[in-house]
Amino acid sequence: MCQLLGMNCNVPTDIVFSFTGFATRGGGTDIHNDGWGIAFFEGAGVRHFVDHEAAVASPIAQLIKRVPIKSTNVIAHIRKATQGHIALENCHPFVRELWGRYWVFAHNGDLKEFAPLLDGPYRPVGNTDSERAFCFILQQLRRQFGDVMPSCAALTGALRALVDQIAAHGTFNMMLSGGTALYAHCSTNLHYLVRQYPFAKALLSDDDLSVDFSQVTTPNDRVAIIVTEPLTTNERWTRFDAGDLMLFVDGLPVDLATL
Amino acid sequence: MCQLLGMNCNVPTDIVFSFTGFATRGGGTDIHNDGWGIAFFEGAGVRHFVDHEAAVASPIAQLIKRVPIKSTNVIAHIRKATQGHIALENCHPFVRELWGRYWVFAHNGDLKEFAPLLDGPYRPVGNTDSERAFCFILQQLRRQFGDVMPSCAALTGALRALVDQIAAHGTFNMMLSGGTALYAHCSTNLHYLVRQYPFAKALLSDDDLSVDFSQVTTPNDRVAIIVTEPLTTNERWTRFDAGDLMLFVDGLPVDLATL
Repeated sequence: MCQLLGMNCNVPTDIVFSFTGFATRGGGTDIHNDGWGIAFFEGAGVRHFVDHEAAVASPIAQLIKRVPIKSTNVIAHIRKATQGHIALENCHPFVRELWGRYWVFAHNGDLKEFAPLLDGPYRPVGNTDSERAFCFILQQLRRQFGDVMPSCAALTGALRALVDQIAAHGTFNMMLSGGTALYAHCSTNLHYLVRQYPFAKALLSDDDLSVDFSQVTTPNDRVAIIVTEPLTTNERWTRFDAGDLMLFVDGLPVDLATL
Repeated sequence: MCQLLGMNCNVPTDIVFSFTGFATRGGGTDIHNDGWGIAFFEGAGVRHFVDHEAAVASPIAQLIKRVPIKSTNVIAHIRKATQGHIALENCHPFVRELWGRYWVFAHNGDLKEFAPLLDGPYRPVGNTDSERAFCFILQQLRRQFGDVMPSCAALTGALRALVDQIAAHGTFNMMLSGGTALYAHCSTNLHYLVRQYPFAKALLSDDDLSVDFSQVTTPNDRVAIIVTEPLTTNERWTRFDAGDLMLFVDGLPVDLATL
């Protein structure tokens, strides 16, 4: 199994603090040492870093912890291989283009007997169930909506159906972003919190590090952090229910009933 | 205009020496300071780094110069914006998937009135002529060959026709790789050399750096370096003729007449 970390904000924010705790689980406080990856949206562009080294040993992970890359949508992943051997092409997150924008996807879980017909333009490069699921999602979205990105409500409805179809094959905790919003689906284990004014101090559970967010934010900043297991010991994390599909926009969960 | 650097080898080799000289041109010895990027194939996977900072100032470029990432196919680019504003989504190289493998593309030049009909699955995310050309190439290859990658001879023939069609619109120096071979097309300016046994010492023209390749290679290693302007002062570089499309495999140019 693997772990997921996502961030969705209303202003570009760096993920140094959360990634530092998260990366420690990649071979340090936990066993997820079969590679890691992170993707940052920056406008329409994506910075994509993947590595088949353990995150604790990776010089690229060191760079991510040192250089504050600001982004409104970030997805990160540390891998414990279940399906697919340890190789760069099997490291999450995966990136593909649809509707003239990049889509970033990462998955935690294990899909059994999941071999959807992939006869569209998206084919897996590696051999994970996860990349197969990502290609299937994009293929079906393109088939359903053609060449133009649909409304948020229509996209969310289509994803709801696709995610249920895939999750019938096993555990499908996943995150997906096209750069403006972040979707998160929980089969078994996912938590989130929203940091906003008044900001307070946060203490990492996996590393001897704290940050006083009131010193590094403005009153208008809002940041949602979504993660497999809570990253801090002194904040209140909300656990997803099994089957929840959540949509985060501008650092807040969106009530899907209002779409 | 921009500059291109490519490497194709028979065994995974790091590009630290060549990239160090090349990156110095990104705002140091030359004016290409509107971003840079590099992509390394590692098996079927790709490490992709892009940055809209000048290469000389970028902490990610520093990492590439410091950490020897080994690869058999590398494409790098430093950008002086002509079309498309300075933004991450406009930094080369671009990466897309076709036939279940990643393709990496970078372009130096300027295409006038180049607005091909893009009605397939590849749409530009940014607004450069270059990404438009890349999407067009992949669209046409997929249209011509369907879902299965053709033979090297068929692919090369198709690329020859596509490249001529695009180059009719202006300057089209470009590099393209699907991970096993590297194509390079010259409109105006491109040079290459092959380093092989007996290896010698090389002196960078843009930086106070030399390396004695005989100390860091085995007799079987072979490396082709392709670059806009020669990187070293004491090696013999071969200049491409205008219109040349070359294919490099295992560190050697392939005679296309033999395909």
